[in-house]
Amino acid sequence: MDWAILTPISAVISILAGGYLFYQVQKSPTGTKEAARVSKAINEGANAYLGVLYTALVVVAVILSIVLVLVFRDIWMAVAYILGAMSSAVAGYVGMQVALMANAKSATAAQHGLSKAFPVAFSAGGVMGMSVVGLAVLGMGVIYLIFRDPQIVLGFSFGATSFALLAKAGGGIYTKTADIGADLVGKVELSLPEDDPRNPAVIADNVGDNVGDVAGMGGDIFDSYVASVVAVMILGTSLIAKNPATYTLSYVIAPLIFAAAGIIASVVGMLFVRGSEGQNPTKALNMGTYVTCVAFALLALGIVFLLDLNVAVFWATVAGLLAGIIIGITTDYYTSIDQRAAKHTAEVSQTGPAINILTGFSYGLLSIVPPILGMAAATVIAFYVSQGMGMDGMYGISIAAVGMLSISGMVVSSDAYGPIVDNAQGVAEMAGMDEEVIRVCAQMDAAGNTAKAITKGFAISAAGLTALALFAAYAETVNLVNLDLLSPIVIAGVFIGAMMPPIFSAMTILSVGKNANKMIEEIRRQVREIPGLLEGTADPDYASCVRIASQGALWELVGPGVLAFLAPLAVGFLLGPAALGGFLAGSIFVGVVFGLFMANSGGLWDNAKKYIEDGALGGPGSEEHKAAVVGDTVGDPFKDTAGPSINTLLTVVALIATVFAPVINEYALPVVFGWF
Amino acid sequence: MDWAILTPISAVISILAGGYLFYQVQKSPTGTKEAARVSKAINEGANAYLGVLYTALVVVAVILSIVLVLVFRDIWMAVAYILGAMSSAVAGYVGMQVALMANAKSATAAQHGLSKAFPVAFSAGGVMGMSVVGLAVLGMGVIYLIFRDPQIVLGFSFGATSFALLAKAGGGIYTKTADIGADLVGKVELSLPEDDPRNPAVIADNVGDNVGDVAGMGGDIFDSYVASVVAVMILGTSLIAKNPATYTLSYVIAPLIFAAAGIIASVVGMLFVRGSEGQNPTKALNMGTYVTCVAFALLALGIVFLLDLNVAVFWATVAGLLAGIIIGITTDYYTSIDQRAAKHTAEVSQTGPAINILTGFSYGLLSIVPPILGMAAATVIAFYVSQGMGMDGMYGISIAAVGMLSISGMVVSSDAYGPIVDNAQGVAEMAGMDEEVIRVCAQMDAAGNTAKAITKGFAISAAGLTALALFAAYAETVNLVNLDLLSPIVIAGVFIGAMMPPIFSAMTILSVGKNANKMIEEIRRQVREIPGLLEGTADPDYASCVRIASQGALWELVGPGVLAFLAPLAVGFLLGPAALGGFLAGSIFVGVVFGLFMANSGGLWDNAKKYIEDGALGGPGSEEHKAAVVGDTVGDPFKDTAGPSINTLLTVVALIATVFAPVINEYALPVVFGWF
Repeated sequence: MDWAILTPISAVISILAGGYLFYQVQKSPTGTKEAARVSKAINEGANAYLGVLYTALVVVAVILSIVLVLVFRDIWMAVAYILGAMSSAVAGYVGMQVALMANAKSATAAQHGLSKAFPVAFSAGGVMGMSVVGLAVLGMGVIYLIFRDPQIVLGFSFGATSFALLAKAGGGIYTKTADIGADLVGKVELSLPEDDPRNPAVIADNVGDNVGDVAGMGGDIFDSYVASVVAVMILGTSLIAKNPATYTLSYVIAPLIFAAAGIIASVVGMLFVRGSEGQNPTKALNMGTYVTCVAFALLALGIVFLLDLNVAVFWATVAGLLAGIIIGITTDYYTSIDQRAAKHTAEVSQTGPAINILTGFSYGLLSIVPPILGMAAATVIAFYVSQGMGMDGMYGISIAAVGMLSISGMVVSSDAYGPIVDNAQGVAEMAGMDEEVIRVCAQMDAAGNTAKAITKGFAISAAGLTALALFAAYAETVNLVNLDLLSPIVIAGVFIGAMMPPIFSAMTILSVGKNANKMIEEIRRQVREIPGLLEGTADPDYASCVRIASQGALWELVGPGVLAFLAPLAVGFLLGPAALGGFLAGSIFVGVVFGLFMANSGGLWDNAKKYIEDGALGGPGSEEHKAAVVGDTVGDPFKDTAGPSINTLLTVVALIATVFAPVINEYALPVVFGWF
Repeated sequence: MDWAILTPISAVISILAGGYLFYQVQKSPTGTKEAARVSKAINEGANAYLGVLYTALVVVAVILSIVLVLVFRDIWMAVAYILGAMSSAVAGYVGMQVALMANAKSATAAQHGLSKAFPVAFSAGGVMGMSVVGLAVLGMGVIYLIFRDPQIVLGFSFGATSFALLAKAGGGIYTKTADIGADLVGKVELSLPEDDPRNPAVIADNVGDNVGDVAGMGGDIFDSYVASVVAVMILGTSLIAKNPATYTLSYVIAPLIFAAAGIIASVVGMLFVRGSEGQNPTKALNMGTYVTCVAFALLALGIVFLLDLNVAVFWATVAGLLAGIIIGITTDYYTSIDQRAAKHTAEVSQTGPAINILTGFSYGLLSIVPPILGMAAATVIAFYVSQGMGMDGMYGISIAAVGMLSISGMVVSSDAYGPIVDNAQGVAEMAGMDEEVIRVCAQMDAAGNTAKAITKGFAISAAGLTALALFAAYAETVNLVNLDLLSPIVIAGVFIGAMMPPIFSAMTILSVGKNANKMIEEIRRQVREIPGLLEGTADPDYASCVRIASQGALWELVGPGVLAFLAPLAVGFLLGPAALGGFLAGSIFVGVVFGLFMANSGGLWDNAKKYIEDGALGGPGSEEHKAAVVGDTVGDPFKDTAGPSINTLLTVVALIATVFAPVINEYALPVVFGWF
């Protein structure tokens, strides 16, 4: 039997589950007219952003499709590319729409308590989770069933990564432009509270939460998810070619089936997520994740026997899964409001913003230790267990990446829940709901922040392992038997690759600063020119703030985007395949360090500030609080722009190398002229 | 003829030149009683610090000597180790004493204008420069002449690196403890100006400048200088063993002779450093550096013919020298007060400290590009030119490191000039000298800041290239034919090595924060308990502030120090020689990124603040200025503690690996049990 047929079936299950959740959300009432009005404003703002984003995507997709057709003299790679870009864009669109619909509904449901509100918000997140994995598996499954060629599936992955770069890095610039603009003028200059409707940037800010954490994170995980599966398919194909006696076609379709099983496991896990009065929603979300892991592990064992795979595949999968869990737990430790790191960072704010920043920066650097050790252990264990059991070690490492990403359905659902409840709180405040409703929303929001922090650690580690898997696939494609760190051209490649994450981070952070400045000027202009704005008698022009944030974000992305696409090609063609291998390795090692440290420092500063806002030390408005706000503002682009964009950067450069590997291997200058 | 005999001769020339400069400084008058009093207080504080530092050194040296004797069952390695630690400690001591002597003398000479003051300050810096290179070359030369064994010289290098770690990282913690403590209470809480004698931490702060930039930087460059020479000697020895027909003993002694030539070139260069009225002292210092480079290149060419070396040695040396110059120029661009990066960082301070920090952080990340490209180019060029001309490529890379470091005599002289003029300004202000004198001192100080910034970029790049050379020597010692980045154990090693610089940075920065807090409490206590202190009628207790900074700094160093020594041994013995190779590579790549970015961001924030203090934007006391002060305070431990300590970290881990390589190669668990 051709088990690959299971993939579209599970994809359909996923889409049906998403449809059911969508229906659950939709039937929940939107509530007061006031709430609907606020929700509508956010909705319009978000759709304005999506218009700009999709226009940018079309431009990029057209250019890259033409490049693919010209380079490969074949149309199907380009078609798969467009499908990949479209699928991940559609997943982002669906997720955004339901998230936008759910914010007012969650706030309204919160009037009847946590046990009513939580399912609405989580179901809405679940729609995003199911869309991401469903459309990813559907696309890969169908393309594979038609062409039976992993290279074409690679085109699909390349499409997904193009959208991810725009949605994640562009969204990251957008969201922090709006956030910093709204905070610096609104909170600091005008002394307005958070989410005050008189702040012209407030809608842009609320849109930003969805943009970064729904569309962006969804696109990002879609990207890693697909790339890890494709990397294993490529390695599997090459194993069959080398050793047809040992390896069967099952090794090629295995990652697809694992992804399909991950969908089922995520659906099962989501059934266990139940909010109840007086219980911390974080516990409910964690329960869902643990159940998903266990369910997936059981399914994985079944698949190994069903497809007659080496049992090492199972152990490698479990190694990846465990590394994912370790990373989640440690991220929580370093960023949680209840732990020492956040409290200490809050305490040192007594000596001003500088020490707050230095402390959060340092804890962020220390926070990389457990996840990196986890990744290193997963790599070593997956490799040697595989080798010890008679299977190719590199295949083991790659399948570990698939194992880690198999629970993506559940992870994205929890993550997308975050901005929904964040927005719900915003709607409740702007619509003037009761204190008690706001309290319930705040409780859901705190759990959402933890979920978002865990997802960030998960996403960067998953991207790191996926990039390693692609690195292996690249090496296989260009027939690199070894990649010698004692060779100067490899050393040069690693050095250049090592610069990529810092440069990319710097460019996106500078973009946020530049764009936020424009936003600040616009807010000041509105306050100056619109009479009655501060008194609440006249409405601000929300749309112009959204426009500035959207257009600026995507324009600013041209530089970093071009860099991400051209740097690996330049290294490959000018310095050759070995240097490009070094380049990938350098970008992965430094990227993982920067991605983890930036995400965690940012989360830590945020929670140190919240710790003070909850009444510790001087409480809100104190000097400590002001210092902590500076730290939080520094952390904003760390955790929401630069840090998470690095995930996408890693897969982008690795995919470009892998996609263009056959051409580089033939036409690179050192190959043509016999250098090095 | 045995050309190695040239090395003690040039060392003696260096020491004579140092003695002459010392005499020049000494005969210059100390000036007013008030100036002598301030100078004496700084002197006492510095000697108190040195007492603690040398006690710590003795403890470390005793422990490590015993370890060396036990491990190698031979006393001479340990003897060389002690000599190395002592020589670099003596160089640091001499440099400190003359710097301390010169501060009041420079301030006094400034009463007669720049052309009188500059030679005093630069001569004092020159004593340090000549001591460093003289004692380094003397030690290496004599040990080599006696034992004719590079392994024993390696012991000398290991001793130098032990001192460097204590002096650089400990000094870095000390200096920023004092600086931040003095600023946060003195400037912010009490509104005292910089260098006000009523501030109890003012002496500790002035001592700190000498501690970090004289003893620390001297120890650091001594360390890299010796290590690069030893790495080449080891590679040369192994080349002779493998291919006695091509390589002669000249390839082993070549780096020693180059170092000797570097001394002569530096003396020549120093003759060209002349201050004249109305001329920017930076020009004079740069002129000295350029003359040194040209003189060295000519001497190098002569040596190649004298020793009958492959001409590739000359080209590799020049590649290293050029990379050093590129790095100096670009560092200047990214940190200079006249350039866009610093001005832009100052301008964005209008929106508060957060954007100032984000901007400086981003420019710091971008600033790594030119030096890393320079290092990569030097590596590739040195290797392939050597190989193309029939010489071993790795030997070429290592000799490039020696080439870069050959101008150390001149570089250290300029660098040590920095804290001397910084202190001179302090003395002038505390002793109540004329406005005009303070202006001359400020002018000299600005040039000193540039020199210090250039040296930092130079030092980290030199440390990076040196670590690469040691990495090659390590690979040679453990017979690593290649180090495959596709092997999981190497990947794991790189991952673990990549964490070292971030962890080390985080630990030292947290130490600064912790220690600065103690200092702040002590200052507040004195203000509270000493009547008349703020009115200037009673003297503060300077000594207790010095004590807190000194003892805290060295205690705080226990954690990072133990980490630096044990991590490579743990990786080597538990995961094997290949993983340790990966570990070294990971620490070098990430270390260079972090070292450069931290040093440059720090320098940039400092100059952005100075730009505002010079009257731009709101000028001193404005909101912009306050925001820029926060950035500067964040940058302080970046540029003076964590960033420069990474240099030492890189050589420490690489030297430990190389020193213990024979033992690891025999007793590592994977070797013993045949794993991997």
